[in-house]
Amino acid sequence: MTVTTRINDDLAAWDAEHFLHPTTHIANHQKGIMAGRIVTGGEGSTVIDRDGNRFLDAFAALYCVNVGYGRTEIADAIAKQARDLAFFHTFGGNSNEPAIRLAKMVMERAPAHMSKVFFGLAGSDANETNVKLAWHYHILRGEPQRRKVISRWRGYHGSGIVSGSMTGLAGYHTRMGLPLPGFLHTDAPHYLRRPDASMSEAQFLDWLIERLEAMIQAEGPETIAAFVGEPVMGTGGILPPPEGYWARVQEVLDRHGILLIADEVVTGFGRTGAMFGSDKFGLRPDFITIAKGLTSAYAPLSGSIISQRVMDVLVAGSEEHGVLAHGFTYSAHPVSAAAGVATLDLVDRLGLVQNAAEVGPYLIERLRAELGQHANVAEIRGVGLMAAIEFMEDPAAMRWFEPMTVGPKISAAMLARGVMARAMPEGNIIGFAPPLCFTRAEVDQTVAVLKAAVTEVLGG
Amino acid sequence: MTVTTRINDDLAAWDAEHFLHPTTHIANHQKGIMAGRIVTGGEGSTVIDRDGNRFLDAFAALYCVNVGYGRTEIADAIAKQARDLAFFHTFGGNSNEPAIRLAKMVMERAPAHMSKVFFGLAGSDANETNVKLAWHYHILRGEPQRRKVISRWRGYHGSGIVSGSMTGLAGYHTRMGLPLPGFLHTDAPHYLRRPDASMSEAQFLDWLIERLEAMIQAEGPETIAAFVGEPVMGTGGILPPPEGYWARVQEVLDRHGILLIADEVVTGFGRTGAMFGSDKFGLRPDFITIAKGLTSAYAPLSGSIISQRVMDVLVAGSEEHGVLAHGFTYSAHPVSAAAGVATLDLVDRLGLVQNAAEVGPYLIERLRAELGQHANVAEIRGVGLMAAIEFMEDPAAMRWFEPMTVGPKISAAMLARGVMARAMPEGNIIGFAPPLCFTRAEVDQTVAVLKAAVTEVLGG
Repeated sequence: MTVTTRINDDLAAWDAEHFLHPTTHIANHQKGIMAGRIVTGGEGSTVIDRDGNRFLDAFAALYCVNVGYGRTEIADAIAKQARDLAFFHTFGGNSNEPAIRLAKMVMERAPAHMSKVFFGLAGSDANETNVKLAWHYHILRGEPQRRKVISRWRGYHGSGIVSGSMTGLAGYHTRMGLPLPGFLHTDAPHYLRRPDASMSEAQFLDWLIERLEAMIQAEGPETIAAFVGEPVMGTGGILPPPEGYWARVQEVLDRHGILLIADEVVTGFGRTGAMFGSDKFGLRPDFITIAKGLTSAYAPLSGSIISQRVMDVLVAGSEEHGVLAHGFTYSAHPVSAAAGVATLDLVDRLGLVQNAAEVGPYLIERLRAELGQHANVAEIRGVGLMAAIEFMEDPAAMRWFEPMTVGPKISAAMLARGVMARAMPEGNIIGFAPPLCFTRAEVDQTVAVLKAAVTEVLGG
Repeated sequence: MTVTTRINDDLAAWDAEHFLHPTTHIANHQKGIMAGRIVTGGEGSTVIDRDGNRFLDAFAALYCVNVGYGRTEIADAIAKQARDLAFFHTFGGNSNEPAIRLAKMVMERAPAHMSKVFFGLAGSDANETNVKLAWHYHILRGEPQRRKVISRWRGYHGSGIVSGSMTGLAGYHTRMGLPLPGFLHTDAPHYLRRPDASMSEAQFLDWLIERLEAMIQAEGPETIAAFVGEPVMGTGGILPPPEGYWARVQEVLDRHGILLIADEVVTGFGRTGAMFGSDKFGLRPDFITIAKGLTSAYAPLSGSIISQRVMDVLVAGSEEHGVLAHGFTYSAHPVSAAAGVATLDLVDRLGLVQNAAEVGPYLIERLRAELGQHANVAEIRGVGLMAAIEFMEDPAAMRWFEPMTVGPKISAAMLARGVMARAMPEGNIIGFAPPLCFTRAEVDQTVAVLKAAVTEVLGG
């Protein structure tokens, strides 16, 4: 296909003049020399821009449009709620029907030891809510010195001040003065990046756990409030952990009284082929952060699912001290909640968790068949419908390309052929996280386009 | 009117079991002994619960439903956008038409020295974006030591970790371990709470400015990044500042190279009878935080309006260092942006800024006429359509009631008579911030109900 260049009309000029875009090269955007396009519609796994170009979206926007584009069931639910009652707040025990129904649906799907859900707007604020409530929990239990939070290099937890502090990607820290003090990072559980090429995966896992334990001992276990991690790292490169990783981490945390926040913004609601990554990988979190898949991005909504043992302390705290002073005006927004109810219904009715569990392995299989032998392919990895291919100059010699040199070129070459995939930061990694309704034919198209793009950029 | 008690059916039980509400007494909510109700609809300034009870909402939910309930124009815009394109992200220069149109509309309304708008979800994240960008600005200009942020006691800037640190209400700090280090609070500009009863308002203003200057000198001006303030304090008690306050504060900040963040989450888009409180009170901010009025709460959306002088530095920074690593998946959400476009259109078409400028003074006049002579009334104050009445045990002797004893009783007595108003924290203050379409007849009803409630609680 040929991608038509956008017409430089009023909209494009207004965009450059007035609108500061997220995670964008500001100067280039202002000059109008960006690859970005004005998107106007979509259906299934396809998005359409206003010039009529169609793209197969193998990243579901930002791994969030899990049910696919153009689902009238969700649009209808949003429209109905906007007409019936667009908004009333849920402070002071006030409520609305879609928020109640959604809370029930979330808790029916959450691991059994979880108790209640608090609603926010975006993954960043939900992660921040979880840290704040972890601090509150420790204060109520007489351990106010438990303040530090451990996350991991290559982890992604948002780009706010606290969530960005937890994110373990240098680009989110540099020239922002982050991370804040007390936000620590342990190693990324990515075997390809092991410190010593001779390590087995089992030895690498031992090393990860020793390093975590050493950090906790050096800081003082009594000063650590929580550990936050994605069951499968997303933005850091789509990194399924080594076998047995989470059981080992969980043992360390439990032994030191450290709460676990599972950031399931990406993995929640089916992405890994299970309802939650915590189920799939055997985490027993005190907080689960949810967003993206909760509404398939049809309306902004996030949440914090809280364990029974934490809730017991919060309830007792409110008996003693009164109102929990935490909430956003738009917590449990009725329109967003209605989108959530319709989304989770649709995930069930379309069997999308099962589809992710089936089509995901097919994607890995096709990637390995078509590109597994390429001289620059270091790793093809994934779980459910999240996958990545990582390129190195010489994988056998552990010689890396300069980060973000090859990856962006491959994703640009794919876009020119009508397929969106994402060049992940701090490496040369192409990530795939398509809508959970992705078909085998769409996998075939994606892999064919990837292969052509790789050949164009790196040779055959 | 008689307010019907809600039926204890499945919805109420699910609500108590699964849904952790914002800013709610958790234990009481779990036991089902809250005043909250399940709201199902609304029209104009009236909200309706599922038992059919109707309430005149003199606080516009949480001073956010500025255009009033049941506006089909906004619901239709939301419905259309949800059908056309519910979501695509705006990272990497990607865009959508309603976000571009809304950015243009916001900048047409913003003070002339402002340059661009970044979109978030809630006021809390927008305030955090502004702090982060203020740090980024200082780092790019070679002053990385400028990190501290000064806000004010009684200020409200959200309940996240950073936004809650800036909030100057003890309830948001206690048992959360806030504020974080480096978040300082100077005095609330509320003459009724002057430290010495003999001070004139002019002397009080001098004292405020001296105290601010002394704090800056004690900390070191070169360590202060920003000052954040609401043009008119909201949650702290609806506190219009003393005459000339902002010009004096601005002079201090300018002299020390401290950026000004104007938190206009409440005051933006007409609440004060001007488009922005910054216009009305002569602030020249580097950042304006917007939310609530931007969409009238019909969909979650916030924003950070950024001055030209800050943008110039950010643009130069991106020329040198590349992509600005800040953004939320749901930044500039198409459905929320469509709600914003329809809202700002409606504010103009209905002449709501003008109505606020006219009906607001009528509300103050009626409050003073009916309650100005009551023995416990210490102050009736306001600007535009935000007003408050504050009660003391003996105003002449400066003898206060215990905070939150009388206020919540009066608001409960008003609710029982079908009018919602808000008992503000850290005092005995009833706040009014109705939809900007509030009529004189609705003012009359509100004041009559307030008078009856005050008589019930405090006597005639």
